[in-house]
Amino acid sequence: MANPRKLKMGMVGGGRDAFIGAVHRTAACLDGDVEFVAGALSSTPGKAIASGKDLGLDDARNYTTYETMIDGESKLPEGERVDFVSIVTPNHMHFPVARAMLNAGINVVCDKPLVHTVAEANELIELSKKCDAVFAVTYNYSGYPMVKQARHVARSGQLGEIRKIIVEYNQGWLAERLEKTGQKQADWRTDPARSGIGGAIGDIGSHAEQLAAYITGLRMESLCADLTTFVPERQLDDDANLLLRFEGGAKGLLCASQVCVGKENDLRIRVWGTKGGLEWHQEEPNSLSFTPLGEPEQTFRRGNNNLCEEAKKNTRIPPGHPEAFIEAFANVYNAACSAMRDGAGFDSGDKYDYPDLCAGAQGVRFIEKTVENSQSEIKWTKL
Amino acid sequence: MANPRKLKMGMVGGGRDAFIGAVHRTAACLDGDVEFVAGALSSTPGKAIASGKDLGLDDARNYTTYETMIDGESKLPEGERVDFVSIVTPNHMHFPVARAMLNAGINVVCDKPLVHTVAEANELIELSKKCDAVFAVTYNYSGYPMVKQARHVARSGQLGEIRKIIVEYNQGWLAERLEKTGQKQADWRTDPARSGIGGAIGDIGSHAEQLAAYITGLRMESLCADLTTFVPERQLDDDANLLLRFEGGAKGLLCASQVCVGKENDLRIRVWGTKGGLEWHQEEPNSLSFTPLGEPEQTFRRGNNNLCEEAKKNTRIPPGHPEAFIEAFANVYNAACSAMRDGAGFDSGDKYDYPDLCAGAQGVRFIEKTVENSQSEIKWTKL
Amino acid sequence: MANPRKLKMGMVGGGRDAFIGAVHRTAACLDGDVEFVAGALSSTPGKAIASGKDLGLDDARNYTTYETMIDGESKLPEGERVDFVSIVTPNHMHFPVARAMLNAGINVVCDKPLVHTVAEANELIELSKKCDAVFAVTYNYSGYPMVKQARHVARSGQLGEIRKIIVEYNQGWLAERLEKTGQKQADWRTDPARSGIGGAIGDIGSHAEQLAAYITGLRMESLCADLTTFVPERQLDDDANLLLRFEGGAKGLLCASQVCVGKENDLRIRVWGTKGGLEWHQEEPNSLSFTPLGEPEQTFRRGNNNLCEEAKKNTRIPPGHPEAFIEAFANVYNAACSAMRDGAGFDSGDKYDYPDLCAGAQGVRFIEKTVENSQSEIKWTKL
Amino acid sequence: MANPRKLKMGMVGGGRDAFIGAVHRTAACLDGDVEFVAGALSSTPGKAIASGKDLGLDDARNYTTYETMIDGESKLPEGERVDFVSIVTPNHMHFPVARAMLNAGINVVCDKPLVHTVAEANELIELSKKCDAVFAVTYNYSGYPMVKQARHVARSGQLGEIRKIIVEYNQGWLAERLEKTGQKQADWRTDPARSGIGGAIGDIGSHAEQLAAYITGLRMESLCADLTTFVPERQLDDDANLLLRFEGGAKGLLCASQVCVGKENDLRIRVWGTKGGLEWHQEEPNSLSFTPLGEPEQTFRRGNNNLCEEAKKNTRIPPGHPEAFIEAFANVYNAACSAMRDGAGFDSGDKYDYPDLCAGAQGVRFIEKTVENSQSEIKWTKL
Repeated sequence: MANPRKLKMGMVGGGRDAFIGAVHRTAACLDGDVEFVAGALSSTPGKAIASGKDLGLDDARNYTTYETMIDGESKLPEGERVDFVSIVTPNHMHFPVARAMLNAGINVVCDKPLVHTVAEANELIELSKKCDAVFAVTYNYSGYPMVKQARHVARSGQLGEIRKIIVEYNQGWLAERLEKTGQKQADWRTDPARSGIGGAIGDIGSHAEQLAAYITGLRMESLCADLTTFVPERQLDDDANLLLRFEGGAKGLLCASQVCVGKENDLRIRVWGTKGGLEWHQEEPNSLSFTPLGEPEQTFRRGNNNLCEEAKKNTRIPPGHPEAFIEAFANVYNAACSAMRDGAGFDSGDKYDYPDLCAGAQGVRFIEKTVENSQSEIKWTKL
Repeated sequence: MANPRKLKMGMVGGGRDAFIGAVHRTAACLDGDVEFVAGALSSTPGKAIASGKDLGLDDARNYTTYETMIDGESKLPEGERVDFVSIVTPNHMHFPVARAMLNAGINVVCDKPLVHTVAEANELIELSKKCDAVFAVTYNYSGYPMVKQARHVARSGQLGEIRKIIVEYNQGWLAERLEKTGQKQADWRTDPARSGIGGAIGDIGSHAEQLAAYITGLRMESLCADLTTFVPERQLDDDANLLLRFEGGAKGLLCASQVCVGKENDLRIRVWGTKGGLEWHQEEPNSLSFTPLGEPEQTFRRGNNNLCEEAKKNTRIPPGHPEAFIEAFANVYNAACSAMRDGAGFDSGDKYDYPDLCAGAQGVRFIEKTVENSQSEIKWTKL
Repeated sequence: MANPRKLKMGMVGGGRDAFIGAVHRTAACLDGDVEFVAGALSSTPGKAIASGKDLGLDDARNYTTYETMIDGESKLPEGERVDFVSIVTPNHMHFPVARAMLNAGINVVCDKPLVHTVAEANELIELSKKCDAVFAVTYNYSGYPMVKQARHVARSGQLGEIRKIIVEYNQGWLAERLEKTGQKQADWRTDPARSGIGGAIGDIGSHAEQLAAYITGLRMESLCADLTTFVPERQLDDDANLLLRFEGGAKGLLCASQVCVGKENDLRIRVWGTKGGLEWHQEEPNSLSFTPLGEPEQTFRRGNNNLCEEAKKNTRIPPGHPEAFIEAFANVYNAACSAMRDGAGFDSGDKYDYPDLCAGAQGVRFIEKTVENSQSEIKWTKL
Repeated sequence: MANPRKLKMGMVGGGRDAFIGAVHRTAACLDGDVEFVAGALSSTPGKAIASGKDLGLDDARNYTTYETMIDGESKLPEGERVDFVSIVTPNHMHFPVARAMLNAGINVVCDKPLVHTVAEANELIELSKKCDAVFAVTYNYSGYPMVKQARHVARSGQLGEIRKIIVEYNQGWLAERLEKTGQKQADWRTDPARSGIGGAIGDIGSHAEQLAAYITGLRMESLCADLTTFVPERQLDDDANLLLRFEGGAKGLLCASQVCVGKENDLRIRVWGTKGGLEWHQEEPNSLSFTPLGEPEQTFRRGNNNLCEEAKKNTRIPPGHPEAFIEAFANVYNAACSAMRDGAGFDSGDKYDYPDLCAGAQGVRFIEKTVENSQSEIKWTKL
């Protein structure tokens, strides 16, 4: 592989005590094509500076706010300033930071769920169109090579017409009131002011929704939802069950839960069509099960020659030396960075194979509609 | 084990070409405590007689109709006549045959779903009470030892308060229009006149419903359903997705499908409570996963000393020599036969641990309510 | 299937407290084609009689010794007397009982390992030839349908030329000195007088040896062995590791252990050739993995149409309703019984697909050579 | 975590077309604590330079030979010159390059197997002692967190006294004569001049040997081996089967093969003692099975609080977000780099938990003795 132009990354959020910031930095830099050069790593100025020092940032580019980062970077000569900024703050800051970046013409990589409301998502789409910036949303699970293979199997007709989708994301880490202990992740993710209107449905249900859409390409037409808050005094849902209907008549089930004791990040998807079925599980990501009608189950394995081009392209090492979470995350960064290098701009997600603003906006709409539907009791039949 | 009194079994249905009749006979006789002595094995007299000859029935007890069987057996001296009759016909015959047997004071083992309507189920309950007969419904999956262990774990408080149940029964055998080929099983199971108002929801969804109830003991309070007929021109649903609510606040998902290409009899259940989770899968029935809060997953295995009494009692051979479908089926027969030997009569299901008329009636109600709910469109929110 | 002539079975051994006798009776009678009519069920006369009463034997055919059984049965008219006798005693009685049965011209089904010495095995072969009796040895694992499929894959050239075989049978039940507790199975199986010169290698290593031979058809040419007795004061090996060489150049590993804590009946085999590999595991017997060179792994599943004839023929119920140990055992009985019905006599094992005296004798030779080789220290290189 | 001093890495080998060089660079730099600054990336000068340019090396430190690298780096002021050099050449260059580095007082990270002969290994040990350099050998599988947990379980007495070890490393990539196609990895790995006297036994058998030693701490006392070359005209073994004996009486089996069609990097280990057993599989590295005597199997999972300190320390992200090969590799680098930062010098492997020269030398001795033993035919008993 020829050596691509090394891109310069800035980051907002992701300082000391954060979890996902380090993942973003490692993923972005995994293949040596991205350099982390600037940060506004915390909303607390002292912590921002300390975090930047930990990570070896130049003092001049170790900012205390995203506004000063935009200011500072804009003054640098082209070629020195950041090529893109990763936004890894709690959800409520995604919108103001992303808007400011787009207004400054800076490419963005932003964590999911994108923003709190559909209105905000639409505003970002408009801004992004205007400045023709690349905007990637880190639906990282779609970066797995075997998810690419699943997409290939589904979209190349090997399943026939799709009839049924079951997608689940079950965790157990919030089975108790962890937010009461001061655990930072639990704290903000269960707080509507910072997390948005969705709890489990926003944090992980949105991953499930995107994974189904990414693999099958089917548009969700309607839904029927039951959100529950199991843990006493929690402010957001920690369990979600949904019936789904897709264009073309496919039906689906989606569940997302944070109270499934013993489950870690049990994201799994099953899809069946008229000619075959497939199954993939995030915790054992290097395999993909495919069951063609009337034939024995086949297990595709990452790294083999019998896979599709996209699966092969998103792979680093030979079969049986397992790749996992961080490589999948890096694949999303790599795709977005390719688009940036080419100046591909808005709406390049499909071409470069990264989740873009449209995917992000769709996720926000999904969360809104789920919460809305769940509030109605009209759908239930008593036994 | 002391040798129990050998019971005499009659059978209605289950002749040549039938599938489930042979399973019932093998299961009932597996441990040598039941003798198959009389049959009305087909609604076609010639086939009935030929089937009985195949199986070595005495000519005198090889009947052409269930009515003549009742007649003939009633004339035999006590001790020679049948102790019970197994009804393994297509569903539409369950009610008339069962009613006739109860009217004659004969104990009954009947396949599921019990009958076509709640009204019929209630009539059988009344009759059964009156004649104080044992009436077992072969929800055979609840006969598995590791299902007994799951029930024990759930009911002894090891899961804490139950929050979530996911139960699935996915098959693929009806992904194409098999009923058009003359395949006997597909033919009657997709015919509302013989199968009843439920397709997948009746044939296998009812197993899922009963399994959840058997393990957790929770009463289902309400449901929200989406039934689909995917195969063109099929007359009954071949796919079912449901949201469930249980007494005490537990939530659930149930799905049952016959169009999941590649799936065989993929019945599986997961249950989570405040203190732990469990998972069981019918196709690998000798293991049960248990995840206590904060501890590593434990895998219980059939035949070991660390299991509950009911799991140990329903086991024949040592761990690692797998037992499977036929033994579980036999366990249901054995339990019902124990009740018969003791003259335990109506309402002895809980005590003797077999699925009784109440479980059967609950299944019929579940099917009715699911079909009713599925017809309403009011519950859906468009995206 | 037409109804086959019902055969009459006698049994020597297998009374109260025995484990394997009940398995043989259930297996033989599973499909209703065999009737258990006579027994000499224990070497202790009182226990023999009590055991026969438990099982409902006629007093006249409830014998106290195998000699009186031969006497009694021989006096019955043809058509009433036993068609065959199952020998399920501890190993040391196999030879005298089998010899007596053959001398009386009675077909035999005998548990494994066949006898204590190659000389005894050869004598049985001669006798069996002379009276042209069917003699089956219950290497029951070769009765599994997916083992038949494995044999088909291996023998039809789908693996190419076979290079490597790894076969293991790991148990943990003798990790402690269970024989000291009076546990009957442990007691005689660790006693050279009753069990023979092999402990683990005889009891379960012989199953592993036969499984490899049955699937691949390769003759073992030489071996190099390391037998160990781990449990203090035990008189026989409880752990065996072997290097194997087969005709044609294939190499192998065999291990058999009774001290692998946590293992139940973990018999598994892997075979690789120039064109593919396969893997089967007794504890999940309904699947068979096949890896053709350059293609994804395929998982064959019992009961499907895409299997070989022998696999389909040895199956009772549809895919996904698991069959297991007892059905596999019954398949061995059914095959031997078919040979008996046809009067096929000696050397009909290959044709009727049951393990015959030659397989039994090969197992005895294997045990002898393993024990012999293990006693030499010459093979080891110090590090 | 405080930010550790960033170390400067040089590399010998690992240029264009190499496989393992990129793995070493990514692993070393994964956590941002190592900087890749100098290279002699190929023995072909043109390729060396081009490879360095690809990777963004300064021209001044993009060397054509390891000798000029030593020269150049030695002239740089302390603090600028390399802290250590990674040797990722084919095996035959490990010795001369390592010797030269040690002579120059430079810390070394070297791929396995360490060198071709025990004599060479001993010379490196002497040199390393003299200059008190850190010398790590990348037995990367011992970097997995769940291998650390296995080691903890074994060494803290939870298995009791160890009796049996089965360790396997099965691959299928050399089932055909891949070296004939010009595939670079196959080419040198099957060439005795570059690979050494071991084929499969050297390349992957040595990993198996080290993994067993690392987990159990048991010294191998003697072995009995059968090496085979299955692929015609291949010059080295491609299949190895061994019987093992360990100090204290434990027995073992080791196999390593490159002709197991369908296997990728199927390294797995099972260990049993008097009180429990454990099992780990490299291709699903985030789980560890533990079976305590008489209790259900427990599955430990990476990232959880119920693990030992070493397992927790070698983990980056939460449970269920799988870590894999690259993180384990990085853990070996991190441990060696910690030793370098502390100036820990020779013989610090145990303290800092990295595989050191002693482990490397033991591997070379193992290969030599295996090849020696395999040449004797004396050990075989004919059947």
